[in-house]
Amino acid sequence: MANKSKIPSDTISKIKAIRKQQLSADDLAQGIFEGNKAMLAKAITLLESTNPAHFEKANAVIEKCLAQPSNSIRLGITGVPGVGKSSFIETLGKTLTEKGNKVAVLAVDPTSSLSKGSILGDKTRMETLAKDPNAFIRPSPSGNSLGGVAQKTRESIILCEAAGYNVILVETVGVGQSEIAVHSMVDFFLLLKLSGAGDELQGIKRGIMEMADGIAINKADGNNLENAKLAVTEFSRALHLYPPKSNGWTPKVKKCSALENSGIKEIWEMVQQFVDHTKSNGFFEVNRQQQNKNWFVHTVDEYIKQFFHQKETFKTEQARLLTEIEEHKISPFYAAKILLDKITEEL
Amino acid sequence: MANKSKIPSDTISKIKAIRKQQLSADDLAQGIFEGNKAMLAKAITLLESTNPAHFEKANAVIEKCLAQPSNSIRLGITGVPGVGKSSFIETLGKTLTEKGNKVAVLAVDPTSSLSKGSILGDKTRMETLAKDPNAFIRPSPSGNSLGGVAQKTRESIILCEAAGYNVILVETVGVGQSEIAVHSMVDFFLLLKLSGAGDELQGIKRGIMEMADGIAINKADGNNLENAKLAVTEFSRALHLYPPKSNGWTPKVKKCSALENSGIKEIWEMVQQFVDHTKSNGFFEVNRQQQNKNWFVHTVDEYIKQFFHQKETFKTEQARLLTEIEEHKISPFYAAKILLDKITEEL
Repeated sequence: MANKSKIPSDTISKIKAIRKQQLSADDLAQGIFEGNKAMLAKAITLLESTNPAHFEKANAVIEKCLAQPSNSIRLGITGVPGVGKSSFIETLGKTLTEKGNKVAVLAVDPTSSLSKGSILGDKTRMETLAKDPNAFIRPSPSGNSLGGVAQKTRESIILCEAAGYNVILVETVGVGQSEIAVHSMVDFFLLLKLSGAGDELQGIKRGIMEMADGIAINKADGNNLENAKLAVTEFSRALHLYPPKSNGWTPKVKKCSALENSGIKEIWEMVQQFVDHTKSNGFFEVNRQQQNKNWFVHTVDEYIKQFFHQKETFKTEQARLLTEIEEHKISPFYAAKILLDKITEEL
Repeated sequence: MANKSKIPSDTISKIKAIRKQQLSADDLAQGIFEGNKAMLAKAITLLESTNPAHFEKANAVIEKCLAQPSNSIRLGITGVPGVGKSSFIETLGKTLTEKGNKVAVLAVDPTSSLSKGSILGDKTRMETLAKDPNAFIRPSPSGNSLGGVAQKTRESIILCEAAGYNVILVETVGVGQSEIAVHSMVDFFLLLKLSGAGDELQGIKRGIMEMADGIAINKADGNNLENAKLAVTEFSRALHLYPPKSNGWTPKVKKCSALENSGIKEIWEMVQQFVDHTKSNGFFEVNRQQQNKNWFVHTVDEYIKQFFHQKETFKTEQARLLTEIEEHKISPFYAAKILLDKITEEL
């Protein structure tokens, strides 16, 4: 009480007002262009918002950011839990910022709403990188559908690039369709693996192998080193079984140790070789163009869904019909038809 | 010319008329209840149709079929290409029909529109079963989205059950999200594996292992037999690492050989034990109820998408905007917003 009384009440109001300040799309974009991390974070929070009122403003910020020139490299990184993704990203990130790059780390984890953020949810996992002024780390957006989660990450890439981040690392976990989503938003897709671990521990599917532009055998240190060398040979041979990629690039296998900081530079050299290769044959640009077209198609479907889901009639009717289904009064298909009729006749 | 002239032209017209005959929902349902395979196939073709005019009738047939009592077991079967799914299903199917069951084989393969039907597309793969009067085999519906493909298979299950098929086998291929879709429409989920094959060949993810109610090590014959026995032990141990299932069932691992018809009966006994177990603890019914609710939610979203996609404005505007994106005149997100605005303002 004694302490509080020293601050005049109008000052407190002013501070509160500033905190609550409604920043315009222009304010946010300006902050982003200046590389202000707090503004970047605010803008990402805005675009992740499910509040329809925020939708317009978030879109305005994205459009402004798209107009900014960027010469970024977007790198997707996947691997099952336990493969050492966090330490790998931290070591790679530090290596890159030391070379003068600005590194943004994003994530796509559709399970995070269930598990309360298994990826990047805990910033302490990348303590050193999190403190680096030239690094920006953002956990996976949460959401009910992979489509929604991935779209928000995709939009965040644009904002990070406008804020001057020239290397965008997009992490995902080696389960489910999330790899496909991340693959569709990056230039280079890196698969992390362990040597010596059995089938079930690695759990990487054939389809993921096919998507990879490069494989890194992580934890190639100590007793694992010999196994890692063997794994490099094995996976190189396995990759040869796949048909050649349309971009003319032959995926490579490297070993590394995030712990000992060995092999990390070589992996980055591989990424740069890839970028040089695909920029010279035009594929880099063609790929980004195709990605843009795919994202348009997916975004439209996501918007259509949102358009209906936010209607009051939709919510109340859906709840009512779910109860009827539970009570065996109606079939799921007929209930769906009733709901569609109800919302479309109301339009 | 000489032969043709023997058939009076009005007879030809009559035959054509019968062939083209527009069967009513009642006709189709009646045919299904009588176990008429041709009528069942026609009704499934109707529900697979993308023609909006067929939508109403297909729904009417489904509603009628849902009213029919059924005591079916729905069994999902997955495994990567090469694991021997077709021979397994053929051998299991024959074993079941010999015991007096009626067996329907359906499939969910979202890649089939690309690969022109990799699953069940070729009926010759299950030649003996296809000729069995008590078996009904239907290839995967084709479609642009897994949601659409899976929904149609799900609806086909209802029709098959109304036609008296009491064992429904739903096959899927061990890649992508299709396992999750099939898992959400069956009572028991069986994973086929091979012994001795390496990580990449099997390519089954941890998540799939977690969904399995049982694992069958196939091709346990000849030189593989000893390896298969080892694999049974290994996988049984691996399954113990997962948390117990809410249905109180402990997944089991069995070996079998479709070639030698060994172990197949034991796998069916396992399925029946599971059904007894979950029917006695109520989970069987609870699971089907939850599946119905999930299907309702997914079906609504699919309907909403279709509702817009079939509009002419949608098609022309989408094509126009894709060109603009290609020419870098507009961003994918802004284009999506324009398309949404265009179609919603027209409503």
